[in-house]
Amino acid sequence: MKTTILIHCPDQAGIINAVTYFIHSKNGNIIYLDQHVDKEAGVFFMRLESDFDNPDFSIDDFKNKFGKSLAEKYQMKWSVYSSGVKPKMALFVSKYNHCLYDLLSRFNSGELDVEIPFIISNHKDLQYIAEQFNIPFHYIPVTKETKTDAENQQLHLLKKYSIDCIVLARYMQIVTSKIIDSYPNKIINIHHSFLPAFAGAKPYHAAFQRGVKIIGATCHYVTEELDAGPIIEQDVTTVSHSHSIKDFIAKGRDLEKIVLSRGVKLHLQRKTMVYNNKTVIFS
Amino acid sequence: MKTTILIHCPDQAGIINAVTYFIHSKNGNIIYLDQHVDKEAGVFFMRLESDFDNPDFSIDDFKNKFGKSLAEKYQMKWSVYSSGVKPKMALFVSKYNHCLYDLLSRFNSGELDVEIPFIISNHKDLQYIAEQFNIPFHYIPVTKETKTDAENQQLHLLKKYSIDCIVLARYMQIVTSKIIDSYPNKIINIHHSFLPAFAGAKPYHAAFQRGVKIIGATCHYVTEELDAGPIIEQDVTTVSHSHSIKDFIAKGRDLEKIVLSRGVKLHLQRKTMVYNNKTVIFS
Amino acid sequence: MKTTILIHCPDQAGIINAVTYFIHSKNGNIIYLDQHVDKEAGVFFMRLESDFDNPDFSIDDFKNKFGKSLAEKYQMKWSVYSSGVKPKMALFVSKYNHCLYDLLSRFNSGELDVEIPFIISNHKDLQYIAEQFNIPFHYIPVTKETKTDAENQQLHLLKKYSIDCIVLARYMQIVTSKIIDSYPNKIINIHHSFLPAFAGAKPYHAAFQRGVKIIGATCHYVTEELDAGPIIEQDVTTVSHSHSIKDFIAKGRDLEKIVLSRGVKLHLQRKTMVYNNKTVIFS
Amino acid sequence: MKTTILIHCPDQAGIINAVTYFIHSKNGNIIYLDQHVDKEAGVFFMRLESDFDNPDFSIDDFKNKFGKSLAEKYQMKWSVYSSGVKPKMALFVSKYNHCLYDLLSRFNSGELDVEIPFIISNHKDLQYIAEQFNIPFHYIPVTKETKTDAENQQLHLLKKYSIDCIVLARYMQIVTSKIIDSYPNKIINIHHSFLPAFAGAKPYHAAFQRGVKIIGATCHYVTEELDAGPIIEQDVTTVSHSHSIKDFIAKGRDLEKIVLSRGVKLHLQRKTMVYNNKTVIFS
Repeated sequence: MKTTILIHCPDQAGIINAVTYFIHSKNGNIIYLDQHVDKEAGVFFMRLESDFDNPDFSIDDFKNKFGKSLAEKYQMKWSVYSSGVKPKMALFVSKYNHCLYDLLSRFNSGELDVEIPFIISNHKDLQYIAEQFNIPFHYIPVTKETKTDAENQQLHLLKKYSIDCIVLARYMQIVTSKIIDSYPNKIINIHHSFLPAFAGAKPYHAAFQRGVKIIGATCHYVTEELDAGPIIEQDVTTVSHSHSIKDFIAKGRDLEKIVLSRGVKLHLQRKTMVYNNKTVIFS
Repeated sequence: MKTTILIHCPDQAGIINAVTYFIHSKNGNIIYLDQHVDKEAGVFFMRLESDFDNPDFSIDDFKNKFGKSLAEKYQMKWSVYSSGVKPKMALFVSKYNHCLYDLLSRFNSGELDVEIPFIISNHKDLQYIAEQFNIPFHYIPVTKETKTDAENQQLHLLKKYSIDCIVLARYMQIVTSKIIDSYPNKIINIHHSFLPAFAGAKPYHAAFQRGVKIIGATCHYVTEELDAGPIIEQDVTTVSHSHSIKDFIAKGRDLEKIVLSRGVKLHLQRKTMVYNNKTVIFS
Repeated sequence: MKTTILIHCPDQAGIINAVTYFIHSKNGNIIYLDQHVDKEAGVFFMRLESDFDNPDFSIDDFKNKFGKSLAEKYQMKWSVYSSGVKPKMALFVSKYNHCLYDLLSRFNSGELDVEIPFIISNHKDLQYIAEQFNIPFHYIPVTKETKTDAENQQLHLLKKYSIDCIVLARYMQIVTSKIIDSYPNKIINIHHSFLPAFAGAKPYHAAFQRGVKIIGATCHYVTEELDAGPIIEQDVTTVSHSHSIKDFIAKGRDLEKIVLSRGVKLHLQRKTMVYNNKTVIFS
Repeated sequence: MKTTILIHCPDQAGIINAVTYFIHSKNGNIIYLDQHVDKEAGVFFMRLESDFDNPDFSIDDFKNKFGKSLAEKYQMKWSVYSSGVKPKMALFVSKYNHCLYDLLSRFNSGELDVEIPFIISNHKDLQYIAEQFNIPFHYIPVTKETKTDAENQQLHLLKKYSIDCIVLARYMQIVTSKIIDSYPNKIINIHHSFLPAFAGAKPYHAAFQRGVKIIGATCHYVTEELDAGPIIEQDVTTVSHSHSIKDFIAKGRDLEKIVLSRGVKLHLQRKTMVYNNKTVIFS
């Protein structure tokens, strides 16, 4: 059985040795180890993939012993994932289809190791894509007055299907703390600018107005403050005076879908850790 | 004789034809023509390179006739440059040497078609480089109290040597309107971030704090508002959680020098036009 | 009516003036002009977009007069396209779905101004996508023995539907001169390497073997010589020792689909010209 | 004292644990650990930085024990470097100055932790730069007839100054096995193409001829086969039909100097390992 362990704890000497010794003593073979120390914050981060071949290996027993013999001693925040358990991911969309198409075509090709129990949208425009890909589509309109009701409906679905993480694939609504608090560092958004430049609405218009020579897209975890959560992935493309706002938007679509998909993959592969509103991304 | 003509004027039908007809009628051969229309602003931009082979061609006569027969009719802002006249460029530096080294090694190699009559600095740290390259070095210290005096000294030198344009090669002082007003769209600065993100002081520290995955540099014309002038050129490079602020600064140095040199070359080749605080960059 | 004119001819003085004068004399307004001179070859290239507002404008009359008064004089190869006439594009695929999904999702979003009368494949694997997008799918298997028959069937379909251009969206068969000769510079292929490196089969394996730090994809017109046709568009992405061949392939998929779609858009927008096995790409 | 350890050996379970345990037992603190397994080749690679604070720590004793208790058991190829020992680097140049300027300006700024005892050139063109930077310059002309003599002179200097590594900063001569054999994986070259495309002479001309849309530069270790050694670093930049060969060369210069400097830094920081003609680059 393959397991992935993510750890962070106050930095001190001997942690790597202690963890690798523990894995070794349980007859595990470390097939990947990466580590990082945030020297300013004094925090140690680690990601390990290990193989446990012996037939009587028990993940619960392993967790139990890891917790007692290591995690307490080093004050670790940690999590262990065993291969074979697929996370459940919900998609939130509005009217733009490029990110949805990109995620679903990857999903259909087996590129994303995940279950997608449903798609939620505040508009019916993309229902046809959900049908193309045979994924349940829930139309939950949102107005100022119905916002609370809508979020309750969303939460109900999220709980009902035991959703692990949410992807806002150009969902044009602000998600409130009601949902964020239940999914800390588990809601992934794509913002159509090179954050922190041009946070908020209409970033391509603002970029055009400023006369920048490069535009970007940013995939980040959603926090209460708009467009200010931990950044997972960014990419950019060049523009010139000859490009109109419409051209910015067209070039941006390609960036958005690729950057969002990269961010989603990193999250699903347990390669992201969050600390101090920043991410550690293991490659 | 080769000439470069830059034009902008209110957009209307027939301008390209009128200009090309005029060149043709003066026995000129158009070897390059690029044009751009800013549809929002309704402004037409054009850059032409032409060869005039006939021995009795007079640039003054050409300018005179161009002004009367074309520029007035179409309300053009225009300028004509003839090859063989090298612009004069002053360099302002402080303590960082990478941009200065990069510009001077290009200058020494003949890559920049310019004269560099002198370098001004508010510190003596880089005097040795000026000496390495045999360029006069003027040490003009700047404090709060001496700022006005210092700028007067700078202006005196700029006038004395008929300087055409100024490059702030990591000059760590704010240039005031006293100088800016004499050199509109002729002072080139390098800012060590992808503007408009992280304007102002310590952009690498701010970028590190925000946890971005990409850092950048921006070459722009200096205007009264700090780091808000027309952008000439930008470029970026990727960073990760594993990079410290010191790493950001080291990676940034390479960006800064390349982006500044590109911007300076575009300016010297008369490939930049400014309108509405944005640039048109002809390639 | 908007028209796009593409011209190439031996370089000489006065062409730009002659063409712009002609447009002007037909009451056209030039809204875009770009030109290029290949100095080595002595060839002049031009792309013009013009608006003809007068109601009695006739494209046939225009073509006729353009041919007589200009094209002959300057020995031009030229073509005129009027807006409103959609080109017809056939897609050839095999088993990989990423390029097909990307093209069809753009097509469905209205991003590609084209008709797609059918998809041809030598395998049935992607029939479900054709059905998802309601596009006729023709399964034409290809073996050594049936190659000629298969190409005849393909040609029959291409003629029957008056196809203008063909996109090989990871079609894993070599197209022969039988088809190439009917579609010179009108068959667009995506090759999964930065050509000319790693032409031929299994480029990701070859790139891995060589230990490159960057992989790429190339969109090009198909010519008789394999992977040696005029390059329309290329892009690259970084890799490291930590990436397996499988990782190369996964990263490459994103490159391939984006680069192919960019190439297809450039072709459909009449922004490509071919000369001496190279392209001029107007932006 | 800070030490850097580089290891590669046949892959097997327990190596990470064994090494970290060893460091730990010598009162070392691991401040960086990165590891890689080449699954195809079955080889394990590791890079460790450790701090040894105890005043009686002896690097010789450490090496001795590491060799006996670990290296033999796991059949390791390994090396240990202690901080404070600067490597000695020789520069070979011909006529192009951009790479030399870039390396020397970084050296002068303290960016490269190295000694540069001398520069060798087969031309006198760049002697002035050596003088600018106060570095001994040895003019050793090379002709077909004098090649062997010249290499003997070069070897003599290399031995005399105990040179650790050689940088060919656009040295336009082929270095033969006479020198390569004494400096395996210690001669760093910059090739002005995106290898393996355009190996050999005049790569920009070949790239122009082929009509590529991207050009590159490659930093690699020199082996007997020309331009076929292990690649350390590559980068690229876009070009278009509008660029002449002269433009390719100018754009390429910026690539070459940045890519070479990056490669040299990685080598000096002991972040490169070579296996099967490929590199593992630890970041």
